[in-house]
Order: sequence, then structure tokens, then C-alpha cells
Amino acid sequence: MSQIKAGIINVTGYIGAELARLLCQHPRVKLVTITGRSAAGQRLGDVFPNFAGTDYIIKAELDSEIDIAFSAMPHKSSIDIVPSLLKEGIRVVDASADFRLKNADEYPKWYGFTHPSPELLKEAVFGLPELHREKIASASLVANPGCYSTSAILALAPLVKEGLIYPDIVVDSKSGVSGAGRTLSLTTHYSEANEDVCAYSLEGHRHLPEIEQELEALNPTLSPSITFVPHLVPMTRGILSTCYAKLRDDKLPKDAKAEKKLSQLYRQFYKHAPFVQITTKPPHTKHVWGTNYCLIYPTIDSKTNRLIVISCLDNLVKGGAGQAVQNMNLMFDLPENTGLEALAIYP
Amino acid sequence: MSQIKAGIINVTGYIGAELARLLCQHPRVKLVTITGRSAAGQRLGDVFPNFAGTDYIIKAELDSEIDIAFSAMPHKSSIDIVPSLLKEGIRVVDASADFRLKNADEYPKWYGFTHPSPELLKEAVFGLPELHREKIASASLVANPGCYSTSAILALAPLVKEGLIYPDIVVDSKSGVSGAGRTLSLTTHYSEANEDVCAYSLEGHRHLPEIEQELEALNPTLSPSITFVPHLVPMTRGILSTCYAKLRDDKLPKDAKAEKKLSQLYRQFYKHAPFVQITTKPPHTKHVWGTNYCLIYPTIDSKTNRLIVISCLDNLVKGGAGQAVQNMNLMFDLPENTGLEALAIYP
Amino acid sequence: MSQIKAGIINVTGYIGAELARLLCQHPRVKLVTITGRSAAGQRLGDVFPNFAGTDYIIKAELDSEIDIAFSAMPHKSSIDIVPSLLKEGIRVVDASADFRLKNADEYPKWYGFTHPSPELLKEAVFGLPELHREKIASASLVANPGCYSTSAILALAPLVKEGLIYPDIVVDSKSGVSGAGRTLSLTTHYSEANEDVCAYSLEGHRHLPEIEQELEALNPTLSPSITFVPHLVPMTRGILSTCYAKLRDDKLPKDAKAEKKLSQLYRQFYKHAPFVQITTKPPHTKHVWGTNYCLIYPTIDSKTNRLIVISCLDNLVKGGAGQAVQNMNLMFDLPENTGLEALAIYP
Amino acid sequence: MSQIKAGIINVTGYIGAELARLLCQHPRVKLVTITGRSAAGQRLGDVFPNFAGTDYIIKAELDSEIDIAFSAMPHKSSIDIVPSLLKEGIRVVDASADFRLKNADEYPKWYGFTHPSPELLKEAVFGLPELHREKIASASLVANPGCYSTSAILALAPLVKEGLIYPDIVVDSKSGVSGAGRTLSLTTHYSEANEDVCAYSLEGHRHLPEIEQELEALNPTLSPSITFVPHLVPMTRGILSTCYAKLRDDKLPKDAKAEKKLSQLYRQFYKHAPFVQITTKPPHTKHVWGTNYCLIYPTIDSKTNRLIVISCLDNLVKGGAGQAVQNMNLMFDLPENTGLEALAIYP
Repeated sequence: MSQIKAGIINVTGYIGAELARLLCQHPRVKLVTITGRSAAGQRLGDVFPNFAGTDYIIKAELDSEIDIAFSAMPHKSSIDIVPSLLKEGIRVVDASADFRLKNADEYPKWYGFTHPSPELLKEAVFGLPELHREKIASASLVANPGCYSTSAILALAPLVKEGLIYPDIVVDSKSGVSGAGRTLSLTTHYSEANEDVCAYSLEGHRHLPEIEQELEALNPTLSPSITFVPHLVPMTRGILSTCYAKLRDDKLPKDAKAEKKLSQLYRQFYKHAPFVQITTKPPHTKHVWGTNYCLIYPTIDSKTNRLIVISCLDNLVKGGAGQAVQNMNLMFDLPENTGLEALAIYP
Repeated sequence: MSQIKAGIINVTGYIGAELARLLCQHPRVKLVTITGRSAAGQRLGDVFPNFAGTDYIIKAELDSEIDIAFSAMPHKSSIDIVPSLLKEGIRVVDASADFRLKNADEYPKWYGFTHPSPELLKEAVFGLPELHREKIASASLVANPGCYSTSAILALAPLVKEGLIYPDIVVDSKSGVSGAGRTLSLTTHYSEANEDVCAYSLEGHRHLPEIEQELEALNPTLSPSITFVPHLVPMTRGILSTCYAKLRDDKLPKDAKAEKKLSQLYRQFYKHAPFVQITTKPPHTKHVWGTNYCLIYPTIDSKTNRLIVISCLDNLVKGGAGQAVQNMNLMFDLPENTGLEALAIYP
Repeated sequence: MSQIKAGIINVTGYIGAELARLLCQHPRVKLVTITGRSAAGQRLGDVFPNFAGTDYIIKAELDSEIDIAFSAMPHKSSIDIVPSLLKEGIRVVDASADFRLKNADEYPKWYGFTHPSPELLKEAVFGLPELHREKIASASLVANPGCYSTSAILALAPLVKEGLIYPDIVVDSKSGVSGAGRTLSLTTHYSEANEDVCAYSLEGHRHLPEIEQELEALNPTLSPSITFVPHLVPMTRGILSTCYAKLRDDKLPKDAKAEKKLSQLYRQFYKHAPFVQITTKPPHTKHVWGTNYCLIYPTIDSKTNRLIVISCLDNLVKGGAGQAVQNMNLMFDLPENTGLEALAIYP
Repeated sequence: MSQIKAGIINVTGYIGAELARLLCQHPRVKLVTITGRSAAGQRLGDVFPNFAGTDYIIKAELDSEIDIAFSAMPHKSSIDIVPSLLKEGIRVVDASADFRLKNADEYPKWYGFTHPSPELLKEAVFGLPELHREKIASASLVANPGCYSTSAILALAPLVKEGLIYPDIVVDSKSGVSGAGRTLSLTTHYSEANEDVCAYSLEGHRHLPEIEQELEALNPTLSPSITFVPHLVPMTRGILSTCYAKLRDDKLPKDAKAEKKLSQLYRQFYKHAPFVQITTKPPHTKHVWGTNYCLIYPTIDSKTNRLIVISCLDNLVKGGAGQAVQNMNLMFDLPENTGLEALAIYP
């Protein structure tokens, strides 16, 4: 079997480095070129010490023929390079938000710029394999979802699809600090972030329109009204999202069987999803550390007839690089979990 | 001025030790006796190293005349000793839940025992000074609130009192590990709790009935329907509660002034509360580390017309020992902040 | 190629679980039986959540034919089961200290018991592949080294072997909390271990006699006089050892070339060791998180003519389970790094 | 009694903020002016949230009459402002290294600049109260020691003074991340520093010449040869230094009394030092969190006849701002511990 030739654009952030880690150990991939302007010419192992034993050199530009490019460019920058890659016949998984939103009007509102290639928004597939497996398989351009978005959409999709809930939804997410990236800031300065919890982006976080778009598409009659509040917690990796919504009266039995039925509904919904596990106890981010799994625990607060769904994942893997590789597997007709089977390192 | 003679029962847990720290530095208190059965006979400084420079000896029983006893006994144990203290004319601040709930019927449901002294439940005052300042001043028995309860009630009280919201309320709380106490468990084992976030007590946390009781009392017509989910985050101290509720249409202007009006309403509600600060930015638990402050940030998600109120405090101080001292100050007619003025140690 | 049939005795500690993680993903091993008395009958995934997707059941006793047994029993317990395993023709890697010391007289002194099978001490091979590769290959019983011992011996072996230093050696080690195991204690209680550093075992740590034994064997004329002080630091995994010794005057050039020569000497010594990397900058424990690597940085304090050698490793992998698998690879004539090639997950 | 009027220059770093915290709560001080060029015009509470309840405004320049100025300027900058302050009759405690070294020749070597005011080096008093109490009391200019220096000198001073040890000394220090200050860097980026330990400044740390200077002054015949290696550990505050030196044969009894005698020698040496505590067990940095204490544990490794002395302190208090206040107390004839009596907040 021939190897898939892959390249990474902007390997010098945490998502880029995680892509490199997964791809260089992937049994069906040959990572042939990696770029990063600020570090061009350096060994990858000098920038990220876990690559010390490897020989990768960071280039200024992609310099080899590749079948697939992973762009880990920041928002608004991917837009400049993706069209030419596609023209060259290179398939693309883009980790930025530049092709996630179907409605071009959302870009000025949430990202502050007018999208220059609205036609590509139609072509791009939102890269959540659990919802769009088939489309991803044949896509040229896959827009890899945000980390929070993945956790929220996977937690809520079955409820929304089945119309189990009223439209009022709260998503309260807790993220480790690596989600803020490798760029320095006082917020992510060790002495400030350690021994601290805070909420942020109360005025509206950019992952919200993705969550709305995907949930609305699942059930156009529901019109969800979502409040999403992200929080920073003192750990490196992991996102845990706690989702709340009122249960519609007629949808589940009013007795002890409701929990079981709810769990079955989730298992059924995700029966073909190798990386979603429905748990019977509240999950911990540590349980998925370094893996591509998303754990989901749906339960009912019977006193208030409210559904609580907790999901967790590793923000750099299922919330980023791992999901990108999962998308690539689908695009190249490989088993979805190829190169992504490693167990969590625990504790 | 004479000193208040105070005793601590069961000084060997984290709340007990924090009470000792605050009382031994309190300018109007003489801490005359401390007990702890398992450690009776030991120096306090041998159990808690921050007292190494002090001379306190842990006794098996209270052995001096005291004006006030702080009970840091576990739930169901305080009940056995408080009545006799009261009979001796000793005023009591009880850190357990044994006298927090007015309705004796709640005890079998939430705590698994029939309350033996329901008459004391009527006499006891719920020790949240911001709501019950006058009653606390004259109380013989003050039931110090739970840590989560304090953060949730303070966050929601103005909204509930003013009828600004619909009854559906979600309280999503994040707590440091010291809230789980000093008793060993796998959950609080370092290697398990580090680099991890999880939700727990999904089946119903014991602080919920306190929260319901106090909010219902503030506005008997509202009948709040509260879902409360606590989470454990990898830090030692701090609770941050994020509260969500739908805004009633007619209560705030539909424009940019709404936020300002909301903030004013909170400032007005807490104008006599020296330890509540209404912030203009999302607060951090680190900002109150080691202090008796509760920071509250109310804001509006205008897209969904939902109120979001974030509160944070130090679970061992305002969520425990500091609030107990604040209650004592009121009981003995001292300025409410006596002995509690220290600034947070930052970072 | 047939698979090696392996069993793990006492899988319920951190070393046992890490052995399971490595063996169940090992391409040449079939993990056929795992035991753990207290958890017999439970699914491994219920005890360690990273195994949730697997089907392993914990048994009371080894219940399948195996080629190799990994004992993760505590000290003094392995002794009771290893002899019978050997009699059955099962090769054994023992993670305890029960067969590490060649001199039976050391056991009463350091471990408080008289060794019942001193003849096995002669037969057992100290399982540090970098020093005893050939003997391990043919051994029936391999005594896997302690985590601190591995870091100290690998750091110092080239210096001792070549006689570069005077006998006075200081080893100052810093370990993550998982090294203390899964048994609960106040020392490893989150609120006590977080935001804290301390030294311990000042009266003499049990890994010292292993370190002495191995260094003495490398150079019987040196008679090293070693002070070893372990410290606990607030992280889950990792050991960093800083070793100090005076340089003998005649052994290295008195100029800028000395550093380079020193580095070459280390590279030469470890040229056949796939898991030892000589670094050119001070290494970080994070660089080896989850891997079997040991990074070593030797340098000279020219002002004092003192050698400083820093080594780091993951205490549960190269300091435990990974090294045990490395030993198994040698015992079964596999490439030394089979199943151990995963890159560190970073950050 | 009149208040001491104090000013802080460059309040916007961690040492500056900690000075503000201690001074604004000091019973004998009025903090009348604080400066910080980059933040001039801002409220201190907007820069450091623990001051939210206070009214301090950061100024561009000192703008009030003061009795004492605390300079928290970076190295090489204090030099420019201190002389003029002294000329105005303002006494100065300088937190930088600019006046710590007596020998002007050391500045080019360690700090890369020629000292412009070598005459002030003679006038300046090294601000370690335990060694220079009398000189500090009458000083106009006190050079506050480095954080590592304080821990190392206090640990070793009695041994050096009494000639108990041979000149070969190793100081292995472990510091929390706040010691690296508030300036952003990849080293102190949360995701990089969390779950990591490393050594740094192997080529020679700038606190070494201070340590050498002070120890040599204590015993001019000893000529200590010191290797000092600092390490970064994942916590916010705290330094723990482990010091090693060979015991001279004739100085302590060769029996069980040696430990006791050693401890007595330390207690005697520090009998007038309110902030030094000699412990009987290895101390923890957590025990002094937020306090001005330095805990010291001297012990003997009888197997090697080596002394091990462990000291710990809070790097921002006894290792910085607290010591500066202690110096001020002496300079203004106040009890040494005025304003510095708070117990550690634990856990």
C-alpha cells in the first residue's frame, strides 16, 4: 500500500505540533514537508523537544508533492493559501475557522473580516466525522471544528436531532490552558493561570456560531437558543462541557427507565462512531488525555426535568489535531481510527 | 475592651484549621480552647505546620469557659453537641449542615437521618450575613452556610428578590480540591486530581436544598427550579459559580443601559455588604485567595436574553471559616470585617 | 511470528496499570492474564478508566499459560511468588526491590526482613539494559530497577566507569507524585502536595543501595560515597536528578574542549542505548512525558571543577513499566524498542 | 506615633505588588506614592486585582514626600535613581542587585555593565537582617538580597561561621515560577511550565556571587567553593534549597548526639532572628506560603559524614518584599516583625 504524502502548514503552534506527532507515527502517512515561517530552517526537535529524535526540518514553504495539506494557520490566514492548494489538486484539512461557517455573513460579525471566497464555504465540509462522515470522505476541503464546538455539538446532537429538548440550551465549558495556544499572554502566564479559575468571552465566543450552525442543521424546527460560556482551568489539556436543556414532557418515560432510554438513544446515535463513548458515570478529562476519544454522559435531573449532558475530550486531539487526522482517514478511505488508537496515558 | 473567648470543636479538618488561623489573629478574640479527638494531646503546630510558631494544644474536650463555640464537626455529629453548648449559654456557629435547613423533612432525604432536634432548626439562623444580618446579631445558634451555597445564593439573591428572572435556574460551580476536606480518598489523591476536571454529585448535591430554601424565602412567588452541578478543578482553594437564568422581558431596558442597570441593582442590593464586590469584568478565584470576599459579575447574553452571573470566593474563607468569623463579629456587635481585612496574596 | 504470552501480577497499582497499557499495545505481546486480589472480578476499565474500551478482567490468580510474568507486587510480597513461577518455567520481570540487591545482608538493613531466597539474588539480573544487556537477554529473573536508581545510575555510570570523578557524589532528585503510588496518604493528598516542594527520606532512601551496588560494580576501585536526597514536586509524572561530583584533574582538558569531550564520552558510553539521549541543553521532565527515554545532560562547573550531570525520565515508564518491557524485549530477542517508540505527548 | 511615609518605585512587577500588599497593611506605614511608568495613571487595583478595594493610583514619578523608597526597578535601572533619592535624604531599600555586591569588578562579569557608583557599593548594606541587623538599622541604602541568596546564605551561615564544613559546597535550589517575574516568556508559559521540572543557569546564576560574598565574609579562612544550581518547579511561590557539604571530623560528636548538637548550634546562631525557625523534620515550602519565615532543617548523612541543610521560604516575601519590609522595620527602629506576623495560609 502506498503511503499518503502529507504536509503541515505552520507547525509551530500546539495544533501544528500535535499534527506532526500524530502524522509521523501514522502507519499510512509519510509526513514529507512542514512549514513555519518564524522558525524556517530550524529542526522541529529544536522547537518541540518531543521531536528531538527525529530529523524534520521546518521549511518556509511546502516543498514537496503532497496528497493532503493540514493548515494550522491562524484565522484569516488560511483563507490566503487554501484556494491555491485546492487548485493544485491538494486536499486540505484546515484547522482554522476560515471555512467552518456556511453563512459568509457571520465572518464580519464574529471574525471582523469579509470572507473573500464565499464559494469555498459551500464546498467546504464541516469536519465532524460523527455528523458528516460521507461528505468528508469525498471532500476536497474539510474545515476542522473548534475544540469547544466539538465537545458541545457531540454532547447535544442526539437531543437536538430527536427533538428531546426545548430550545433553551446552556453550554458551560471548562478548558485547559493549551487551548489558548503557544502565543504568550498574561492570561496564560504560569503564575497567573495556576491556582485559578475564570470565565471569559462572556460577550460571545467565536465557537458559538459553529455550534449553532451544526445543531440547527440537525433539526431545523428547533431553533436552539444557546448560551455558551467558556472557562479556563489550571491544567494543560482537556475540555469538559456541561450542557443543560429542559426535557420535553412526552419524549422519555417518567420513571427510572428514562435514564436507560436516554443512554440507549445516545449509543444508537453514535453506534458507528469509534471515538465516542457513552459513559455510565461522569467522565473526567484525564480519561482521554492524549487520545482522540470524546466521552459523553447524559443524565436527567428529575427534580427539574432538565437534561444534563457532560462531554469531555483532549482539546489538542479530538478537539484539534486528532480530529483532523480522523478526517484524513475518511478522506483516504482508511479505517477511521488508523493511527489514533493509543490509550490514554494515566494518571 | 474585653476579648471574646472562643473555642473550636474539631480543629483537625481544613475548616477547623482555617478557623484557628483567623481567630488566633483576630484583634478581639482570645482562642482559649481547641478540640480534636483523634489528635488530642498534640500541638496544633504538629498537625498544621502553619501554626508551628504557636503554643496551642489540641484537647479532647472544650476545657475553658468560652463565649462562643465554633463547631467544625462533620454532619450529623454537631447535632449531638450543640444543644448542650446552648444550654450552658455558649453561643454557637456551626459549620456543619445540621442546622441549615428549616424543614426537618429534608434531613432524611438529603442526609439520611431524622433530625433529633427540629425545634432548634427554628431557632437557628442561616449564617449568610448579606441576607440575615440582624437575625444573626441576636442569634444563639448560627448555621454557617455551605461553600457552594454561599456562592450561588449571593450570585442569585438580587435577581430572585427583584423578580428579574424566570424560575429556571442553572448553577454550574467549579471548586478547588480543598472543598473535599482533609479525609483521604482516591478522588483527592494528587495523581488523580491533578490535570483533571470532572463533574460530580449529578444525582443531587447536598448544598442544593440550602440554595432553594434561601432563594425561595427571598421571593415566595418565584418557585425557582434549580439545577446545580458541582465540578472539581485542579487547584487547592476557590469556588467559581456560573449561574444562568432567563431574563423577564419587562424588567430591564432593551438597550445598552441594561448592563449598567443590572450592575447598579447588584450594588444597591449589596450596599451594606463589606465583603461583596460587584466587578465590571469576569472575576477570578485567584483574586480572593485567602480572603473573605465574594466577587460577583452579573451580565446579559443579549442574543438569548439570558442573565449570566458569575461569583467567586475562597471556599475555606467566605465559603467556611471566614464567614463563620463574620457571623461572630455580628453576634458580638463588632464591625463586620474585624479580623478579616487581609488582602489576597497574589499571585 | 508467534506472540509472547504475558501476565501481570497486581495490575491495580500505577506500575501495574502502566505495564498493562504498554503490553496491550505491544505488537509482539498478547496480554493473556492480569491479577489483582482486591479488585478480582472487576473489569480493568472500571479500575483504570483509560482501559474503558478494552475487555480485560482482573483475576485473583494467573489463569493462563504465559511465557513471562511481570510482578508489580509490593516489596516483600514478590519473594513469595517468584520462585514458583520460575519453577514452572515462566520468566519473570519483577518490579519490586526483592531481587535487586546482590548482597542478602542489605535486606534486613534497608527493608527490614531476612531474604528467604538468597540463592535467587545471584541468579537475578539487575534490569538496567544500558549496563546489563547481554545478561538480561538470557535471564530467567530480571529485577527491574527503582525509578530514582535508573535516573542516578544512568547519569553517573560513564563518569564512574571512566574514573573521571572523586568518590564524593551528591544525587539530588525531584520526583512527581505518582512515584508514591496509588495508596492514599496525607503526603499525596491533593491539597497538601499541590503548590509545595519538600525533601524526604533524609535518613536514607531505599534506592540508595541499588545505586551504590551498580556504580561500585562499574569501577571497584572508586568506592563512591553517595548522598542521595529525593524531593517531591507538584506534578504527576517525571524524575529529574541533578548529580554532583568533583572532576579529577587529569581526566579532561582544561579548556573549552572539556565540555565537548565530556559529551562525547557520554555518547560513546551509550552508543548502543536507544533510549538514552545526551542533550546539549538542560533537559525537562516534560520532554519525556509518557516515553521510555532518559535524557542526560553532563556539564562542567569550571569555577569549582565540579561535574554536574542532569538526567530525567518518566518515573512510570523508563523508571518502571517501560523499562520492564524493554527488558522483556531483550529476553525475547526483540528489537529493544519494540512497543516503546511513542513520542512524548507535548505540552 | 507618626507613620513612616513610604513610596514604591515600579510597583507593576510581582515584587512591587507584594511590597504594596505588605506596606498598605503595615500598622506603622503610610504608603503615599507608587510609581510604574508603563501603567502610570492606572488604578493599582486594575493592574493587580487583589487591590481592587483600594484607591492607589500608579504615578509616573514619586510625587509625595517620603521617608523611605522601595525600588523594585530591574537590575541596572535602580542605579540611575538611587543616588538622587539618597541626596534628597530619602532612605532606600533596593530590591535589585545593583548594590548587593561589594566588589565593583563583579558587575561586568555577572551583569554585563560597569558600575557607575562604586562608592555607593561601600555604603550600601546587604539587607539580610539575620547577619547585618545593626548595620541595616543605621543604613541609608539597603541592598535587599536575591531570593535564592537568602535561602542559601541562611542555610549555610552557621556552618561556615563555625567552620564545621570543608569548602566544597553544593546548593541545589527549587523555585516556584513567580521567581521569574511577570514578564512573559515561553519558559513561564503555563502549558510549558506545568507538569515539568528543569534546571537552568547551569553556566552560573547571578545570585552566586552574593552567596559567595556573604559566606566568605563570615569566615575568611574557609574560601568556600560553591556550585549553585537553580531549578524551576510547577508552583507559583516558594524556594527550597538543599545544601550539601562535608563535615569536618573534629567538629561534632561521632554519635547520636551530633544531630542534636547541630540543631542547637543553629538555634543559637539564630536566637535573635524572629523569622528563622529550625525544624526537626524536613520543611515544606507550603508551610511558609505568604509569610516572611525561613525554615531550616540541618541534618547529617552519617554514612558519608556529609551535612545536608534544607531551607525554604516564600520567594516573594522572605525572598523579596517581606525581607525589604523587615529591613525597613530595623531602619526605623520598629520591632523586626511589625506588619509581618501573618500566619501562612494553609493548605
